Parts: sequence; structure tokens; C-alpha cells
Amino acid sequence: MTRVTLAIDAMGGDFGPCVTVPAAMQALASYPHLHILLVGDPDIIMSFFAKADSATLARLDVIPAESVIASDAVPSQAIRHSRGSSMRVALELVKAGRAQACISAGNTGALMGLAKLLLKPLEGIERPALMTVLPNQQAGKTVLMDLGANVDSDSTMLVQFALMGAVMAEEILAVASPRVALLNIGQEETKGLASIREAAGILRQTPEINYIGYLEGNDLLTGKTDVLVCDGFVGNVTLKTLEGVVRMFLSLLTSQSEGKKRAWWMPLVARFVKKRLSKRFGHLNPDQYNGACLLGLRSTVIKSHGAANQRAFAAAIEQAEQAVRRQIPERIAARLQAVLPKSD
Amino acid sequence: MTRVTLAIDAMGGDFGPCVTVPAAMQALASYPHLHILLVGDPDIIMSFFAKADSATLARLDVIPAESVIASDAVPSQAIRHSRGSSMRVALELVKAGRAQACISAGNTGALMGLAKLLLKPLEGIERPALMTVLPNQQAGKTVLMDLGANVDSDSTMLVQFALMGAVMAEEILAVASPRVALLNIGQEETKGLASIREAAGILRQTPEINYIGYLEGNDLLTGKTDVLVCDGFVGNVTLKTLEGVVRMFLSLLTSQSEGKKRAWWMPLVARFVKKRLSKRFGHLNPDQYNGACLLGLRSTVIKSHGAANQRAFAAAIEQAEQAVRRQIPERIAARLQAVLPKSD
Repeated sequence: MTRVTLAIDAMGGDFGPCVTVPAAMQALASYPHLHILLVGDPDIIMSFFAKADSATLARLDVIPAESVIASDAVPSQAIRHSRGSSMRVALELVKAGRAQACISAGNTGALMGLAKLLLKPLEGIERPALMTVLPNQQAGKTVLMDLGANVDSDSTMLVQFALMGAVMAEEILAVASPRVALLNIGQEETKGLASIREAAGILRQTPEINYIGYLEGNDLLTGKTDVLVCDGFVGNVTLKTLEGVVRMFLSLLTSQSEGKKRAWWMPLVARFVKKRLSKRFGHLNPDQYNGACLLGLRSTVIKSHGAANQRAFAAAIEQAEQAVRRQIPERIAARLQAVLPKSD
Repeated sequence: MTRVTLAIDAMGGDFGPCVTVPAAMQALASYPHLHILLVGDPDIIMSFFAKADSATLARLDVIPAESVIASDAVPSQAIRHSRGSSMRVALELVKAGRAQACISAGNTGALMGLAKLLLKPLEGIERPALMTVLPNQQAGKTVLMDLGANVDSDSTMLVQFALMGAVMAEEILAVASPRVALLNIGQEETKGLASIREAAGILRQTPEINYIGYLEGNDLLTGKTDVLVCDGFVGNVTLKTLEGVVRMFLSLLTSQSEGKKRAWWMPLVARFVKKRLSKRFGHLNPDQYNGACLLGLRSTVIKSHGAANQRAFAAAIEQAEQAVRRQIPERIAARLQAVLPKSD
């Protein structure tokens, strides 16, 4: 398989190298064609190398960076003072062609801004958007976007999101002619925000997109669509609501039952049944689909949850590997060329 | 206890009188001080009276109405042709003082528009808002609004929602000085839509409100706040997302486990454990908290889910009873007088 090189902002996120370095090792062990550039404080990063074998280390380079952008920094200020930070250096490695994609668990706004600044949007894309792939009840998957790259979006942006989402569904989910829906507060045509109704009008007249209409929040996991498009504010709140509920259920499942004396074997059996249930719900665990992909740039950038653990951050690295291998940016560019009105 | 009279749009919703009439009987059996006016086609409504005892029927009146507003009608058109419809007649009974609140599972937009037209907003309220009370992880409850009465909302409206929500939390949840938060896509002050940031600025300077800042979607059920305020689009999508996930979990819990031969007693024990889990999750079942309250009018209007079953519609009736008994509209009016700048 062709070599894939990824740049990781090793210092970003709530746990920094404690999570990013072991996750990188895990990804390297799974993908023999993968090379990783870990960007950050070399001493700290290398202190996590102790347990690694030499074969893994041979596919790992450490790129020094002096500073870290704080997770709670105001993005505009963080970007202004970003020179030499692990996030920026990681993105610059992509820009210089030394890596094909970048992964960071750091400040979302700063990552978005810097990525746009350094990697440039594709021709025809006004604003990049954050995308994730959610599991659904039909044992399939659903592409959801925008998740917060843009606070609000006009109809043109929503249509561009729909186009990019359709390419993702084709390439990553291997769905031919993926169904595309707009997230709205009712299924009737007259419902919702003007931007959504306008986007619906355009999508209905775009033969390259298999537009199926509006869906509501309760259809997020039902698998009625392959791509679900909304503005960044709504997408962010929706995804976080979903994650909150799923985490609550999983914690209730694994917590001890309260009170009442039962037969001695009951707790054992209960634990067994709950374990099986957890497994069944496990595909909905947010850790499994961590990693939002910033679409619409000339290269791939993956934003991991700030609070990602090793398993979750490894999932984000895998997403980057997949996006590079499937040539997502190139395919989106080609689709845009075919569909969007010529700019000149 | 003082007599409470409620008007029910018996024909509204997906199942009409099949659900509304038995639910009314159920509510009458639980609340001896309750009287109900069932509005709609007398023949159909009375065909469900067979099993009722005479004591219950004594507190029940049927008010004839010729037509029904279709659930999928365009609200503006439905309102224009609403004369004589069960929904409108039910609201007119409240306007005329014959009932103190109205419950309908019919067309949301039409109900909202007609209610505003007939029952008038309270002084100082620009737009009524839909509110619901959600269970949370802390075994407490959270007031969430707006759920879709308004598609988008400016900062003044959000502040008014916050005020009304705080009164609800005090009266219905019996929380002194309830915490009020704005739903946003980050906790930093600089995040989100301009309307939300402006509302935050006003709320911080309103001593009558215990404003605690922004919360994100994943805090919907954590009990970190007593009142969570957002615009109607976001609230609608959030609530429906929540309902979709909870229903999916509950259905997975009650569904048969797949495959593999096990000891004969295993399915029995599994069923027992799942039943207990279902009970534990039961308070999150959307049926339990059905009924969104339209706040900001001179009387109480409760919107039930169109697809509500008997139990869920009965919960909506109970909400109306409670709102009347607690004098919610009067208390909101008093609070508005105290807080809002005088209009003259």
C-alpha cells in the first residue's frame, strides 16, 4: 500500500502527549504503511517511547514545536500568536507536503482558522465544514455536517455541505448515489429557516445530488438518510446532545444496581447481561466515532474531541488515514468542478 | 380543591378521540376536582363513553365542533379557515372563561397562531414560547425552551424566555432562585450566535435571574441548570434528537437478544434484568413528559405530541391541570411587571 504520512499535534487536547503518543503507536501498529510526525516538545513526547519497539519507532518522527495553543484561548488571538505552536507546525508540515493530513485535539476555532489560512479552501467552497460519520440503527452509517465550523450558514453554504457530504458517503461509506437530507423542524416544505428552504430549492434542482427532503432530530439515528446537512450551531448542539444521552445510558448500564437483597447469583447475571447490552450499544459510544473531518480544504484536517482518550484519538488518526487513502479532498474538488457554476 | 376546567381538542393528533377521550377519562379518575370539555364530533366522542361510570361522565361535557384542522395543513391557511374547528372552539372556550386551559395534539403552527390570536400575549411578551420539563440525571428536572414556537429568536426574546422559564422552575419544580443557562456551542463568552451573546449580556445584568452562563448540548440531562434557554429551531431539533435516542435505547432494551444458544434460564434472566433497566430509564421515556406548555399568553395552552398515546396525552392533561392550579400565567405576568422595563 502507498505510504501515508500524518502530522499529529501531539500537545493539543486535555491530555496532550499522554493520549496522542500512545494513540499514534497504536495506529502505527495497525497500519504498516503509516508514518507519523509527532509535533511538540521532544522531551515530553519521547518520554512515552519507552515501551515502543524499534520497528514502530522507525515510522515515527518527532518535529519540535515551542508552544501550545491553549484550549480555552480566543481563536482570533491564538491564531495571531500561533507561530511555533504545535498545531500550526503540524499544519505547516501538511502545507509543505511533508504530511498529507493533520490531526489535532486542540482549540477548535484556532484549528479551523489556521487550517483555512494555511491549507486554503477548494475552489468553489466558501467555508470549510466539520463532518462526522455516525452509526445508525440500520447498521449503516450517516454523514452529519456542519458540526460547528461555521456558526450560521446561508443556503449556498448548506448546498456546498450537501455536495461534500455526498462525496464522503460515496467514498467512505461506499454508498452509490447517497441520500441527502436537510435537518429541519418539520417535514413540510414550508417549515423552518429561510436558508434551509432556499437550500432545499437548489438541491431539488441539482441532479448530481440525490436529495430526499427534510428530516427531523429524531431521525438522526434511524438511517433514513446517508447524509444529513445542517448549520454549524445546530449540528454542534445536536451531536453533543446525542453524545450526552448515549454516555448517560452507557454509564447507567455499567453502574451498580441500587438496593434490595437478591439471590447471590443475581448481581453476576445482571453484570453479564449488562455487558452484552453495552456491547450492543457500543457502536454508539462517542469514542468509536471520534474525529470530525474538516472538509473543503486542499488537504485533510481531523479535529479530535479535546477530552479524547487513547482509543478515541486512535479513531481520529484512522479517519485521517482513510481520508488520505481515499483521496477525499481531490474527489471533492472534482465533484465541485462538475456541479458548481463556473466562477469565471 | 378549587375546580379546574380544561378544554380538550378531542379531534386533534394522529389518533383523535381514540386517544384523547380515554386519556380524559384517566385524568378525571385521578383528579376529583377536574372538569373536562371535550370538543369535536359528539357522535364519535360519545362512542368512547361506553365504559365510563356516571361519576366520571358528570364531570365531562361534549362541545360540538364541525371540522378538524389537518396536522399537515399550512398553519396560515389553516388559521384562516379555522372557524368551527375543534382546536379553535377549544381555545374560544378558554377565551370565554368557560375553561382555564386548552390541550391539543393537533397542528402545532395552527395552535400557536390561534392561541396568540385568541388568548393574547401577556404585556411585555413579544412572542410566546413552547416549554417542556425534562428529567435529568440528578433525579431533578430541567425546564427547556423554546421548542419551536418561534423559528429564530433575537436577544430580547431569549431574555423573555429565560424569565418565563425561571417562573416555571420556581412554581412547577419548586426550585428557589432557579439556575438559568443559555444553550450554546461552547462555554466561553465569545462563542456562538450574536443573539445569544447579547442575551447573556442582558441576563448578567438582571438581578432577578440567577444566570449561570452557557451550557452545551451534552449538558441537557446532567442537571447543571434548572432552566435551559435556546431559540425554537435549536430547541426543537435538540428535543427530537433526545427523544429519538431514548426511544432507540428503550426499543433495544425490550427487543430480543440475537442468536447463540445459551442456558435455558438465560433468556428469562435477561428479560428480568432488562425490565429493571427499562424501569430505571423509564423516567426518560418521552411519553412521561409529553406536553409542551405555550408560555407567555394570558391562559395556558398545552401542545401534545401528535403521535401521543393515551398515557402520553394524559400526561399533557396533567400538565394543564398543574399550570392552572399553580396560576402560571398570572405569576409570569407578575414577574414581567417586576423585571421588564415599563412600556410607557
